[in-house]
Amino acid sequence: MNFVLGIDGGGTSCRAALATVDGAVVGRAKSGAANIRTDLTGARANIVEAARQAFIAAGQDPELIPETPAILGLAGANVGTYRQQLEAILPFSKSRVETDAEIALEGAVGSGDGAMAILGTGTAYMARKKGKSRAIGGWGFQVGDQGSGARIGRDLLEQTLLAYDGIRPGSPLTDAMLAVFRNNPEDVVEFTTNAKPGDFGGFAPKVFEHAEKGDPVANWILDKAVADVEASLGALDLADDAPLCLLGGLAPLYAPRLSARYQTLLKAPLDDALGGAVQMAVRIFAGKSRGGR
Amino acid sequence: MNFVLGIDGGGTSCRAALATVDGAVVGRAKSGAANIRTDLTGARANIVEAARQAFIAAGQDPELIPETPAILGLAGANVGTYRQQLEAILPFSKSRVETDAEIALEGAVGSGDGAMAILGTGTAYMARKKGKSRAIGGWGFQVGDQGSGARIGRDLLEQTLLAYDGIRPGSPLTDAMLAVFRNNPEDVVEFTTNAKPGDFGGFAPKVFEHAEKGDPVANWILDKAVADVEASLGALDLADDAPLCLLGGLAPLYAPRLSARYQTLLKAPLDDALGGAVQMAVRIFAGKSRGGR
Repeated sequence: MNFVLGIDGGGTSCRAALATVDGAVVGRAKSGAANIRTDLTGARANIVEAARQAFIAAGQDPELIPETPAILGLAGANVGTYRQQLEAILPFSKSRVETDAEIALEGAVGSGDGAMAILGTGTAYMARKKGKSRAIGGWGFQVGDQGSGARIGRDLLEQTLLAYDGIRPGSPLTDAMLAVFRNNPEDVVEFTTNAKPGDFGGFAPKVFEHAEKGDPVANWILDKAVADVEASLGALDLADDAPLCLLGGLAPLYAPRLSARYQTLLKAPLDDALGGAVQMAVRIFAGKSRGGR
Repeated sequence: MNFVLGIDGGGTSCRAALATVDGAVVGRAKSGAANIRTDLTGARANIVEAARQAFIAAGQDPELIPETPAILGLAGANVGTYRQQLEAILPFSKSRVETDAEIALEGAVGSGDGAMAILGTGTAYMARKKGKSRAIGGWGFQVGDQGSGARIGRDLLEQTLLAYDGIRPGSPLTDAMLAVFRNNPEDVVEFTTNAKPGDFGGFAPKVFEHAEKGDPVANWILDKAVADVEASLGALDLADDAPLCLLGGLAPLYAPRLSARYQTLLKAPLDDALGGAVQMAVRIFAGKSRGGR
């Protein structure tokens, strides 16, 4: 064994990194979607293609694939038996399928204890304590994803309509939102009928921006969002010295708003999810660790 | 003119009542949907058919339709120019198209001042002060309809997942809900993906039922819902002697939970929406009123 593979696959693309047994990445490549829930054989094909291209990018022979072990982090790997089904048909010397969250956590905090909060269109959390990982959240914006961009955007539209009806006080932000919809609440309702999480989430940066300027509705929404995020962090029961990484598009906006308890735990992520897969492969298959933090 | 017509039309059916100029209903009938937003000519056909059948039910000649004035309460009448378009093509001697809420209010509180709260799968409010009506709410459960069955059901699923993740305390109610979904949060998420307001609202009676038994999560959800309903009532700025009617499937469940301020205003509705259309027709076209309350 001269190399290990890290794979990071999801609904839009699949990335692969080829690394030496010391964890030095020597080739990277990208292919199409690897959605194991909707297309297992298509996912396998794109995973293998990304691996092949990573060998080629490294100037190495793809014929080495059957001698190379791989860690794969894949969205949906925690549901049903997709993980076992995929592991059975992969061409690597050894294959271990983890969730996308697991390799993201490894990338962010390394192999030791620590936690991450993914704060984007959705929200999800994962913590590792004494080697054991626990994931919470990520249930989608309809009945979960508290503090997410989607929830913040939905809250803003709700507050905008409440202000329109004179039920709650308006603000420059709700005025601006209503203007986006031609000052017509029917247009807001029309928008919400088919809006996807990302459509609601598109309004979230506006809320942070207006909160900075002191907008009371924006601050009300974000105070609730921060409380929701901290309630989730609270459930992770983090140790006082555990590194906490914020990931996702809203991470830099949330960081300065967290309370002192969590501010002191914040660390920049060591690496991304693909890097996490590589490091996990080195740790598990080559018996080496870059050490904790 | 010997008769007046009251019409109550919506997305599933259209009801008509023929009454004497004194407001005594002599014939009733029902036909198909009268959705003026999606099918204006189809709505007209069903409206005329319901009117015809009401004449026949009363033992009267439908040929009298062109001599008979009508009040029509139709869902969607407040949007765009559907109202004017329909009035122009109706066969009655005089036609006046109102919203479904307007005739429901007339039915509930009569021609004087008063208010109604429709508390069902959705929520909406209307008040009349010095002859002027004002409607608020009814924007749908995604970003409105606070306190509705749909919102209560959605809140319950959210609290159930938060309890599952250990973020908020669970209760017998959240335990029971999770059991409905085979103790699998993925099943909850699956349900919410395509759930209609009525699907969420189906859980609302369960929340009221458990709240009665002291369930803390049920009471937390309902305290919020009652506060939301009262915030909307507050925005209506009701007079101290104005009758307030609660309509909709959740009305009897909400009534005992309202604060004293609103308890004292509560009155049973005088009549339903169709009766309201009839009484409005008598008042406007025959110049007679049954008097306020």
